[in-house]
Amino acid sequence: MSAALFAEADAPGRALAEELFAALRQAGDDGVGITRDSFGVGESQALDIIQAAAERHGLPAARDAGANLVVTLAGTDPSLPVLACGSHLDSVPQGGNFDGAAGVIAGLMALVRIAASGRPPRRGLHLYALRGEESAAFGRAYMGSSALFGQLSAADLALPHAKTGRSLHDCMAGVGADMARISRGEPLLDPASLAGWLELHIEQGPVMVARGLPVSVVTGIRGNVRHRAVTCHGEAGHSGAVPRWLRKDAAFGAVELLHRLDGHWQALLGQGHDLVVTTGVLGTDPAEHAIARIPGLLRFSFEVRSQSQATLDAFYDLFLEECRAIEAERGVRFSMERRLDTAPAVMDPGLVERLRRVIRDLGLPDEPMASGAGHDSAVFSNAGVPSAMLFVRNEHGSHNPREAMEMADFMAGAEVLWRVLAEAAA
Amino acid sequence: MSAALFAEADAPGRALAEELFAALRQAGDDGVGITRDSFGVGESQALDIIQAAAERHGLPAARDAGANLVVTLAGTDPSLPVLACGSHLDSVPQGGNFDGAAGVIAGLMALVRIAASGRPPRRGLHLYALRGEESAAFGRAYMGSSALFGQLSAADLALPHAKTGRSLHDCMAGVGADMARISRGEPLLDPASLAGWLELHIEQGPVMVARGLPVSVVTGIRGNVRHRAVTCHGEAGHSGAVPRWLRKDAAFGAVELLHRLDGHWQALLGQGHDLVVTTGVLGTDPAEHAIARIPGLLRFSFEVRSQSQATLDAFYDLFLEECRAIEAERGVRFSMERRLDTAPAVMDPGLVERLRRVIRDLGLPDEPMASGAGHDSAVFSNAGVPSAMLFVRNEHGSHNPREAMEMADFMAGAEVLWRVLAEAAA
Repeated sequence: MSAALFAEADAPGRALAEELFAALRQAGDDGVGITRDSFGVGESQALDIIQAAAERHGLPAARDAGANLVVTLAGTDPSLPVLACGSHLDSVPQGGNFDGAAGVIAGLMALVRIAASGRPPRRGLHLYALRGEESAAFGRAYMGSSALFGQLSAADLALPHAKTGRSLHDCMAGVGADMARISRGEPLLDPASLAGWLELHIEQGPVMVARGLPVSVVTGIRGNVRHRAVTCHGEAGHSGAVPRWLRKDAAFGAVELLHRLDGHWQALLGQGHDLVVTTGVLGTDPAEHAIARIPGLLRFSFEVRSQSQATLDAFYDLFLEECRAIEAERGVRFSMERRLDTAPAVMDPGLVERLRRVIRDLGLPDEPMASGAGHDSAVFSNAGVPSAMLFVRNEHGSHNPREAMEMADFMAGAEVLWRVLAEAAA
Repeated sequence: MSAALFAEADAPGRALAEELFAALRQAGDDGVGITRDSFGVGESQALDIIQAAAERHGLPAARDAGANLVVTLAGTDPSLPVLACGSHLDSVPQGGNFDGAAGVIAGLMALVRIAASGRPPRRGLHLYALRGEESAAFGRAYMGSSALFGQLSAADLALPHAKTGRSLHDCMAGVGADMARISRGEPLLDPASLAGWLELHIEQGPVMVARGLPVSVVTGIRGNVRHRAVTCHGEAGHSGAVPRWLRKDAAFGAVELLHRLDGHWQALLGQGHDLVVTTGVLGTDPAEHAIARIPGLLRFSFEVRSQSQATLDAFYDLFLEECRAIEAERGVRFSMERRLDTAPAVMDPGLVERLRRVIRDLGLPDEPMASGAGHDSAVFSNAGVPSAMLFVRNEHGSHNPREAMEMADFMAGAEVLWRVLAEAAA
């Protein structure tokens, strides 16, 4: 079956999806892109739109203690842990319409389709429209799902909103979250009550467009090791008057380090390791740099991401070794702000296999991939819920108004999600 | 004769030097270092101090049409071209006391010593205390000497002062320069009227401290090729979601280029070429960079300096070749602001040889070197005046309050300058 045909396989679903994407777009339009502020009015409006559609289709919908929207389809055997799906409904400022919302809409389509089939599932199905996944507003991501598992600290709740300065605590309280329980770190959801978690999401990178994949199963969510800033300390000097043998050039020292890391990265990829290396922020000191001055200092950010903690640790060791080597060779010195770690999340092999089998059954190419970006699924997985993710092809990345997911690809993803949910809940 | 003994060889000279350095320091003290603003009040005060000392020692002193101070010792044969010496009296803001002033004071000591000898020279001797050598105020260097040879363009004269915004034209007019002649590009000094130009200056790099040289003859003044900015254009993207094979990372592209240039530099030095390579200003774009974003752009300054135009051109060709190669390999693109050239200046072999002979006669180590920094001497030389320079050892570089020239070294330099002037004018 070609991807284009899935639209016809679930014509009512497609109509519902088009209606909801349009309603969300209209509500979130900020003149440039889409804004659905985390724990703000725009996000609440989006939850209202989904809730109204669910109720119109006869599905009970309510806000949980974290103020997330939960749509339920009861199972015939209430003793079984339920199967959950969904994604987030907030967006970055001037973002796109599909990041997050695609997973909520696909989940709703699946519940509506299963409810309409006349064969109620044994296992209950819950759709979560989560709040506060994006880090743009508070500098912390996955706040909605973290709250579900009692993982927001007092420091997290004190974070000020980037624009208004209002605390996360007050913003969450403002949309109706139970701040007494959340502040105590009390889980709002027992991981054992969930049989699994499935999230459909647009890909935020260019791999699926490049590889020609309408959908792709996520094998794991990359963790990362970061230094917000590494500083190469050299010795400033007149660019004309200091010969090479007397230089301690911070720029060429850092360049040599980064070049060696680039080489190690390439070598590790060749050995089959999952790894990306990025220095996103790099610069000499504007307070003292000049064209005719050997830079005495160069600062850069360091980030490695991998699905494997062992790969992260191994690369980090290489990084430290090369710092020491270049210090000895060039008379520069490297200093680092504290190391920040985010653990990789492993997707549930059983769910991954189910998703891949359905994809192959549908005649679609089956090339699983790692998610480099973080997702709520990592929080569910690390809380002990068997989790899996399905990516849908999307051009131009995310967090910008140029996100371009084609409806044919979305319908293919919705078809896969529906099949797996229906099968696993039956 | 050891360097320390030169103080005794010219005790009155040493007393004069100590008095003048102290007076200049007191007048220029800005609380942090020394400030003698180019074509400003502090510079004029410094000229006044030197003029008063010259007149006190019976030497006529006056301002020329460029408002520079000229101290004269008449020769017995007025038909001979005169021999000139000197340096500049301005400083960068919060600079040191010796950069420029050492050469003016050493020149005055020589004229006073020759006048006091009772044997008037055949050839007249002129000491120039030049204005406006530093580029800190207007972004252009050698303004005083350039004016002498009719080389200030209308664009130069329109340059605004970095702090006050007042034009170079108005600042020069304010200290009494003849702006009608200067604006017409009329030479204020006929190069043919000078038999030669000798400038003593502190070294602005660390070579002489490292090599144990009290004084060193300058063989040439490095020219340079610059781009104020080279931009590596890549493609921004999510640092987690874009794999290596789909990246167009502007940072790693630029890192590879700079690393290759560093390698070429090392190889050319090994082949005996004179070369320094510097990227003093380097950075991702603060308006869009982020730790988790593959940089779409990296800008850096490019500067190569050499005594040889052929080496400059050869290295520049390598630079362009490597840009093209990395563009092909990494999918990035390099663009450059216009190439800026400053031609190397050759020092007069006859004067260089005289200086070196005197140094050897004095039992001092004779290791000539290139000047990496630019100097007024380059302007004199390129105007056709046989020119030479003598460096005096100085720690901690220049353009900062930590300049550290020892009086013993200065006295050795003054001794060499005096001997050569006396000999060449006799």
